[in-house]
Amino acid sequence: MNEIKIFAPATIANISCGFDVLGCCLDTIGDEMVIRKISKKGIHISKIEGENLPFETEKNVAGVAALSLINALYKKLDFGFEIEIYKNIKPGSGIGSSAASAAGAVFAINELLSKPFSKLQLVKFAQEGERIACGSPIADNVAPAIFGGFTLVKNDNPLQVIELPSLDNLLATIIHPQIEIKTADSRAILPKEVTLKNAVKQWANVGSLVHALHTSDFDLLSDSLHDFIVEPHRSKLIPEFDKVKKNSIKAGALGCGISGSGPSIFSFSKGVRVAENVAYTINEIYKKTNIDFNIYISKINTEGVKIIHLQ
Amino acid sequence: MNEIKIFAPATIANISCGFDVLGCCLDTIGDEMVIRKISKKGIHISKIEGENLPFETEKNVAGVAALSLINALYKKLDFGFEIEIYKNIKPGSGIGSSAASAAGAVFAINELLSKPFSKLQLVKFAQEGERIACGSPIADNVAPAIFGGFTLVKNDNPLQVIELPSLDNLLATIIHPQIEIKTADSRAILPKEVTLKNAVKQWANVGSLVHALHTSDFDLLSDSLHDFIVEPHRSKLIPEFDKVKKNSIKAGALGCGISGSGPSIFSFSKGVRVAENVAYTINEIYKKTNIDFNIYISKINTEGVKIIHLQ
Repeated sequence: MNEIKIFAPATIANISCGFDVLGCCLDTIGDEMVIRKISKKGIHISKIEGENLPFETEKNVAGVAALSLINALYKKLDFGFEIEIYKNIKPGSGIGSSAASAAGAVFAINELLSKPFSKLQLVKFAQEGERIACGSPIADNVAPAIFGGFTLVKNDNPLQVIELPSLDNLLATIIHPQIEIKTADSRAILPKEVTLKNAVKQWANVGSLVHALHTSDFDLLSDSLHDFIVEPHRSKLIPEFDKVKKNSIKAGALGCGISGSGPSIFSFSKGVRVAENVAYTINEIYKKTNIDFNIYISKINTEGVKIIHLQ
Repeated sequence: MNEIKIFAPATIANISCGFDVLGCCLDTIGDEMVIRKISKKGIHISKIEGENLPFETEKNVAGVAALSLINALYKKLDFGFEIEIYKNIKPGSGIGSSAASAAGAVFAINELLSKPFSKLQLVKFAQEGERIACGSPIADNVAPAIFGGFTLVKNDNPLQVIELPSLDNLLATIIHPQIEIKTADSRAILPKEVTLKNAVKQWANVGSLVHALHTSDFDLLSDSLHDFIVEPHRSKLIPEFDKVKKNSIKAGALGCGISGSGPSIFSFSKGVRVAENVAYTINEIYKKTNIDFNIYISKINTEGVKIIHLQ
């Protein structure tokens, strides 16, 4: 095995009630990457298409994550890797653009090295990529990108990732309004303190959401997709959020919320027909604004990063 | 069927991370009640042993709950019920004394009427008993008393109770220190606001606790039994709490916390031997104080209220 081509998926973090803990992996939205062994030692970004991102290994998310992995190997390598990145996920979209690059790089190199590391270890390496992208080594997107399905990041340090069951026939409709929300703004708007009353409602919903995934209960899932704490603040930064949410649910969505820290908005639906209805509804709302946007429909991807070919 | 004798179980509410939402039902700690049909209409408390409680139906928790049930019947009854209560659970202990009486009464009458009501409806009637005992119709103890096992009260209004799986071989060791904690004090000590950081840790634990119950994962259960929000405040009202917690865990307990709003302290253990070790350890601590106390060991009761005999 000298070369691998992979699909590096987009992800939804901060799923409604599960701010900072619940994420899931998407299936038809993502980047492609080619990673190949080369005789030159180290990590080398040889090609980037789709976005204007740095080629210097230490400044590139995929590069930093990959370096973190090879530096952790017991025996130093006498060869290196080159990485080609074909970006489809726009940086700053809120669906895990940097996480896809970081997760893809470490997954691919681990495969080429015959899997010396566990998925949990890969998440840790990928977090190093997130550190340069987001300023802190958040696992919210890299965990679902690597594990697939729904994940609960129970703890950051030491890192604990719980793989939750997924539901067949569950789809996400995502709108990415092409506006920039500065990370500083989306952080500054978060309350430092919350009422105990709202916190209780939130953890009741986290508990029932986990139960809903275990029991394949779409109604309960729907009834758990509420966020009393973060959404009321962050939604103000996203044009037409309330309208999109209200009309998505009217169109049959199980629930609707902010993906990551926005500006993307996700809706979950049972079945592709509903997901398409929701997409149509959102399109009708956004086409009346002067904001460029993309709408995607995706199944939940229970595998995480996928191998396209290996040679 | 004219007479039923039942076991009305004690319960643990506010299980660690699950303040206000998570409870479970106990097996060997509880009251007995005899309820029989009589020709005189209405609800009549005919006997109370073990505690000094009011005989007036409207002032008695079991009486109020039972009245709430018969008043909800579509067809008015041309007979009534008398209730005998044999209390073993001390009021104010924190293990659901009033809830046992309320749940027992409505369960028993529902049986004698050939079950016109669902378990969820029984919880609602029992909540009316809790309203006179606690000042508000809390479901935290009556839900596990009626459903058995572990319950998540997702919502109060409309009432939503989720039945969670239980774990075989899981035992609770309970100490009830016989001190009085005034409800007003245990409420006043609660913070109105909590940090977002602690709230996130708490809901990560609620999610992982629910997952642990679904996957029979004792280690994860243990690792989820933390309370960053309420315990640091309420534990101050319970003598030797920190010592009991620390040494219970040292003795092998999976976790330890305040039952309800105290003063009882529960520890969960895997297997009876560990539960007995924990009991021994707690006994050693409390016998050095001048406080009277009882220690109990119980399996999780997955049935809830139990029929002892029916005739």
